[in-house]
Amino acid sequence: MITVLAGGVGAAKFLRGLIDAVDPASITVIGNTGDDEEFLGLHVSPDLDTVVYTLSGAVHPEQGWGLAGETYATLEQAARLGEEAWFKLGDKDIATHLLRTRLLREGKTLSEATEAVARAFGLSCRLLPMSDDRVRTVVTTDGGELSFQEYFVKRRCQDEVRAVRFDGAARARPAPGVLEAIAAAEAVIVAPSNPIVSIGPLLALPRLRDALRKTEAPVIAISPIVGGRAIKGPADKMLASLGYEVSARGVAQMYADFLDMLVLDEQDASLAGEVASAGVRAVVTDTIMRDAATRRALAEATLRAVREV
Amino acid sequence: MITVLAGGVGAAKFLRGLIDAVDPASITVIGNTGDDEEFLGLHVSPDLDTVVYTLSGAVHPEQGWGLAGETYATLEQAARLGEEAWFKLGDKDIATHLLRTRLLREGKTLSEATEAVARAFGLSCRLLPMSDDRVRTVVTTDGGELSFQEYFVKRRCQDEVRAVRFDGAARARPAPGVLEAIAAAEAVIVAPSNPIVSIGPLLALPRLRDALRKTEAPVIAISPIVGGRAIKGPADKMLASLGYEVSARGVAQMYADFLDMLVLDEQDASLAGEVASAGVRAVVTDTIMRDAATRRALAEATLRAVREV
Repeated sequence: MITVLAGGVGAAKFLRGLIDAVDPASITVIGNTGDDEEFLGLHVSPDLDTVVYTLSGAVHPEQGWGLAGETYATLEQAARLGEEAWFKLGDKDIATHLLRTRLLREGKTLSEATEAVARAFGLSCRLLPMSDDRVRTVVTTDGGELSFQEYFVKRRCQDEVRAVRFDGAARARPAPGVLEAIAAAEAVIVAPSNPIVSIGPLLALPRLRDALRKTEAPVIAISPIVGGRAIKGPADKMLASLGYEVSARGVAQMYADFLDMLVLDEQDASLAGEVASAGVRAVVTDTIMRDAATRRALAEATLRAVREV
Repeated sequence: MITVLAGGVGAAKFLRGLIDAVDPASITVIGNTGDDEEFLGLHVSPDLDTVVYTLSGAVHPEQGWGLAGETYATLEQAARLGEEAWFKLGDKDIATHLLRTRLLREGKTLSEATEAVARAFGLSCRLLPMSDDRVRTVVTTDGGELSFQEYFVKRRCQDEVRAVRFDGAARARPAPGVLEAIAAAEAVIVAPSNPIVSIGPLLALPRLRDALRKTEAPVIAISPIVGGRAIKGPADKMLASLGYEVSARGVAQMYADFLDMLVLDEQDASLAGEVASAGVRAVVTDTIMRDAATRRALAEATLRAVREV
């Protein structure tokens, strides 16, 4: 049993390698829902959907999110009707959000709705939202507070980030199965996701961080920072703005209280000693996922490191 | 001030002629919502939308309902995800339902949501739903009870109709402005719509039928039955199944307690005497709306008859 803490695109790519390397039925993914937001009255779970779309092979291959072969007739018409349309919902994508929203309105939990979406796409591993309760990532910028999607999509990460908080996290319960999946795992993998806004919401949940500290399973992360830069997204800018070191060592320090090992890219081999001084064992390999072979190789290197403990 | 009781396609065509004949701002349309139903978790108001789409010129010209130039990417994807997809929701059409549903979820009334949809489409007359309360047309067939859309769309009117009832009508209140629009009108027009399932739900509302009886305005209907057949839809089959006479006289009898005049098609000129014997003045003209000119001519003939009273 392998449990993976996951954000969006980076995590999904890693998971795609992982399901090639081990039996998907042995994988439980705990997905970030701090980015969830309502658009056009629909409950959108961008990170969960990125995992589902990627693992089911339905994802837009260049973007790494959304569905391949999308059209935007509904969104364009909604804009004509005066609705906000800056979040790019494709027509097929909307079917996912309609299904999720319908189930939530009927009183189902987000876990149940997520299971239904995963089943509809034929997902072969288990996907849990981090919580069935509402948690929302709020980014404080010089221009005011923004929801994560406003910061990320509407304003394209152009604002200097002064603070990040997770509204609702303190009162939210981890979704059913989440703490158990961490406690019972043979390995817990923190995917190469933004430590602040992708993994941060999970860590802000009561008892989740504690479960990571207490699990008997080795906890291993893949650094999303390579050569001082984020592979994708605003993680580097955000870490710098918030006063963290923008390096694999910075990541190791953020996770140090629960992390056993950190997978670093070969470019960062020289940081292995610094990572070790943070009490985290460094594993050096090629972490750049260029294709199916490199994705799978990264998953296998990660599993190998875990087995060697 | 002209108030029109309206169903779907037939009413919308008539209204299109009427807005060419008089100032649209003087027209209040009271629309049937007994056909409303939830699809994919969206609140769909087929008759209200047919009026909006037709009067705004956005309607699919051959169908007489739905929007021109539709695609069906969301519906097709929803079907792949296992959702019911027999009600043909186009991608652009879905934007209307998303707007309406969002407003309803936010606590707005159906009147408010309808006003927002009408405004978004630039509607030039006032459109009121018959009620903000839930009323649902239930069709009893030999195979069991069906919602109107199940009877009409899913099963294509193939079932013999044993009874029709309007769930919720007895407790529903006419929407704000409905009774006032009937009381204050200079003329009340019952559009050429199915008397049972399009006009029937309005007449089943408390005080509405009474308001029609009491208004000082002349009440005039256009017969939807011409030459013993419905111009469109299952009105003829339904009337026959339920034991009504399938003729303009049958329509006059159904409305006799509040109707002053009935507009008959020239084909039915011989029925004028029979209509008169039901206490309703017969007005004979060409009622077949083939194009803009004939639609407008029917509206003008109707208004002329009203003014002659």
